Amino acid sequence: MPNNQGIGSIARAMALKQKEISVSEFFQKNRHLLGYDNPTRALLTAVKEAVDNSLDACEEAGILPEITVKILQKAENRFRIIVEDNGPGIVKSQIPKIFGKLLYGSKFHRLKMSRGQQGIGISGAVLYGQLTTGNPSIIISRIDPNRSAYRYEIFIDTKANEPIIQREQIVKWDKPHGTQVEIEIEGRYLRGDRSIDEYVQLCALSNPYATIEYFPPNGTQSLKMKRIIKQLPTPPKTIKPHPYGVELGNLIELLSYTKTKRVVDFLRREFSRVSEQKAIEICQKAGFEPKTSPRKLTREDAEKLYNAINQTKIMAPPLNCLSPIGEEEIISSLKQNFEAQFYSARSRKPEVYRGNPFQIEVGIAYGIRDYPQGESAKLIRFANKVPLLYQQGACALTKAVTGVDWKNYLVNQPKNALPEAPLVIIVHIASVWVPFTSEAKEAIAHYPEIIKETKLALQEVGRELAIFLRKKQIAEYERKRRSIFELYSEEVAKSLQKLSHKDEKEIKRMLHDLIKKFTKKGEI
Amino acid sequence: MPNNQGIGSIARAMALKQKEISVSEFFQKNRHLLGYDNPTRALLTAVKEAVDNSLDACEEAGILPEITVKILQKAENRFRIIVEDNGPGIVKSQIPKIFGKLLYGSKFHRLKMSRGQQGIGISGAVLYGQLTTGNPSIIISRIDPNRSAYRYEIFIDTKANEPIIQREQIVKWDKPHGTQVEIEIEGRYLRGDRSIDEYVQLCALSNPYATIEYFPPNGTQSLKMKRIIKQLPTPPKTIKPHPYGVELGNLIELLSYTKTKRVVDFLRREFSRVSEQKAIEICQKAGFEPKTSPRKLTREDAEKLYNAINQTKIMAPPLNCLSPIGEEEIISSLKQNFEAQFYSARSRKPEVYRGNPFQIEVGIAYGIRDYPQGESAKLIRFANKVPLLYQQGACALTKAVTGVDWKNYLVNQPKNALPEAPLVIIVHIASVWVPFTSEAKEAIAHYPEIIKETKLALQEVGRELAIFLRKKQIAEYERKRRSIFELYSEEVAKSLQKLSHKDEKEIKRMLHDLIKKFTKKGEI
Repeated sequence: MPNNQGIGSIARAMALKQKEISVSEFFQKNRHLLGYDNPTRALLTAVKEAVDNSLDACEEAGILPEITVKILQKAENRFRIIVEDNGPGIVKSQIPKIFGKLLYGSKFHRLKMSRGQQGIGISGAVLYGQLTTGNPSIIISRIDPNRSAYRYEIFIDTKANEPIIQREQIVKWDKPHGTQVEIEIEGRYLRGDRSIDEYVQLCALSNPYATIEYFPPNGTQSLKMKRIIKQLPTPPKTIKPHPYGVELGNLIELLSYTKTKRVVDFLRREFSRVSEQKAIEICQKAGFEPKTSPRKLTREDAEKLYNAINQTKIMAPPLNCLSPIGEEEIISSLKQNFEAQFYSARSRKPEVYRGNPFQIEVGIAYGIRDYPQGESAKLIRFANKVPLLYQQGACALTKAVTGVDWKNYLVNQPKNALPEAPLVIIVHIASVWVPFTSEAKEAIAHYPEIIKETKLALQEVGRELAIFLRKKQIAEYERKRRSIFELYSEEVAKSLQKLSHKDEKEIKRMLHDLIKKFTKKGEI
Repeated sequence: MPNNQGIGSIARAMALKQKEISVSEFFQKNRHLLGYDNPTRALLTAVKEAVDNSLDACEEAGILPEITVKILQKAENRFRIIVEDNGPGIVKSQIPKIFGKLLYGSKFHRLKMSRGQQGIGISGAVLYGQLTTGNPSIIISRIDPNRSAYRYEIFIDTKANEPIIQREQIVKWDKPHGTQVEIEIEGRYLRGDRSIDEYVQLCALSNPYATIEYFPPNGTQSLKMKRIIKQLPTPPKTIKPHPYGVELGNLIELLSYTKTKRVVDFLRREFSRVSEQKAIEICQKAGFEPKTSPRKLTREDAEKLYNAINQTKIMAPPLNCLSPIGEEEIISSLKQNFEAQFYSARSRKPEVYRGNPFQIEVGIAYGIRDYPQGESAKLIRFANKVPLLYQQGACALTKAVTGVDWKNYLVNQPKNALPEAPLVIIVHIASVWVPFTSEAKEAIAHYPEIIKETKLALQEVGRELAIFLRKKQIAEYERKRRSIFELYSEEVAKSLQKLSHKDEKEIKRMLHDLIKKFTKKGEI
């Protein structure tokens, strides 16, 4: 143990080692946080990030998405991923930063439903490619048929978290507008569960207005999922934050940055659903003049304002920031993918958590043909229309499904587990801010509001399923009773004929009618 | 759908919205990633981050840790956390950055086992405090009894990810050296499972050389966990990366930054376990002269070097970078915490994943007194001596425990679940780089090497448990057989007496000896 005299030098020595960590370095070392923890998943993650961006860009520009995904195998564990879209393209000056800098993007600072939201998806894929193969990523983009297409080779300077432009050139390209991303990464290609094949199919299911063509590696037959809806859904709008969602610290920050001159205007302009009247009401409750300058408020004033906001009744946030899939669309997608006896879907009304609107949609298909006996239901999760293939166990949507008492709906269910039935369950969360459990965006954090809404939606379709199953049970029961009655009807007919001397045929017909009548009424 | 002519303006409009996202903004919005997803967990997370730092600082300075944790309730859902240590203190100039900037620290860029590793733990707590209460965090630190103690009030400028010094002063403080952190946050205090109370107790279990005094809120009786070992464990050493752990992209980066002039020196100096001879061997395999300049190597050359490294037999990394708890210490800690019939512990030899040494330790206590019938075993997880209380289901250590076939060791186990027995299982992973599933550091990512090692360790203690349980079964069986025999011995004795005319007492003693002899040999 050092004596007290020498202790100061220890602290000084330790101080010399303190250092800034760039966000690129952080995720390079923690690449599993971005979904690159094993080669199979890495390949899927990189494809997902590129396709997410393509779909977002097309939708924002009002373009029906047409996306091509190509996977080329370069060596045993090395693949080249090429994703091309017909989106609006990216202006030249933005290309390097969007692909070569982590925590950069247009989606983080706004409230509007989109697939990307963090600004680390596609640059994370570029980082992983560079880390495992040493190769730059190649981006081609054109924003206008009258302008050139640009081609960039990009690395990331991980120490600075800034792009390095390895090469920049004008190229010939057959697309009038759009973007193509090409990333070489270490990976492994597998088919089946959680494969890129499954991902592409589920993507088509949740984006029925997109056409996606997919070329698997090694010359395997390509797959073209054509759009089944010829129109884009109503585009979601960007909304302002709702006052109920703001936290005290945010409020203080907003007050210090605002350009407004009076608190009443601050409240009206920075938030959604605050009218002049509401703003005055809030000011009164907080105990200061509506025309007070926001910059003059102290921390204590801000806290008063914060409490006043939460004591005032304010309309729920506008919901046009969301773009659900829709009940009909879910059912037709289910029908296209699964042959079943019963289908149902429900889009709940939007709800709010921490001021963020979100909406839960569920769909079920029961009595799937050739479903293995005793197998658990298949759960398919989506967040903002993106299929979630990993970390099912850690997801709030799973918790909601296993938390429903499926026995109430005549479906077998082991304790705390998915129901055991020939059943497919779809759950979709649409939100301006999806709270993922990690940057890999594969599981939803356990917010009670989300779990509650999902359960309610599942209970609604569950009740419909129970009605269907009960009818089926009754029909089955009647069929059995009838067959028992019919077993004896031959003998009864003979005896009746002996007694009545009537025609055997007529007696049999009479008995048949009787059976039908009784079993329907349930009197036998 | 926009026509091709207008499309360019869309891309230009979209470009204007592109923006850099600061890492503070990112985690403020994604605070659940840091462990602040609900008030109960938030309180625990903030305490954990402060205590982790205190323990790390003390150990690095070679000081036996003496830590005080105080929780003061300020309002229904507002608490003030005060954590004080006797560590080496922090030099004045570093205090603002360590507490007021995310991704800043001394532990990220080195390879050595420590509790913190990311540089976002304690600053994350400061951020959460500021977000939910609007208050600055207060830090007092002194590095030497002959110097002043400094007191800082610190905010984080989230847009810039830089500290804001609200106030800076010299204060009187009774500690000769050490640090005190004071953070006010929104939280909820609960006792029982996953509480701060449990955390503090488990902390004492995994750090038997630390004294921790804990003052719960509301005047509840304080708890003083005194050290049971009076000496610090051998301090872990910082090691260089092992060549097998380096990825191609890292290698290219290292080659471009190195100060060495020849590849052979580059290999020797940047990596552990590479002798001059090994370095020459690698160069030969890669096909270039050992004296080639590292800066002159192309990407293709780097790939050759990378392949040559992986084709060369290199000694495993040095293991003095790890500081395990120890088998004896685990058993004595278990004994102190749980009254049981059987204890066992195992520290495996260190192994390597992605070039990082790690070591698994496990301990079990079986036959816990008053354990509820049919309850699952209690699993206690540690990473670098830090108790992991949340996200058990998502953790690789849990997967290892449920993946062991406990029926082999005579313990009941439902499918894919924890065994059902009066059993406590401790698992500890010690590593220079623990791959957590999120920044909240509560669950280990599913690296196959980690799961495999944990299973092997559990199987070892499992086999010992089986021997104990088998002995217990045999003893039980003998006891039963003996009691059956004894049931008839009275009558047998009488008959024998009649036949032999011997003394009844003598006959009974003879019979008793006989029973003992036979049941021991298992012949009856």
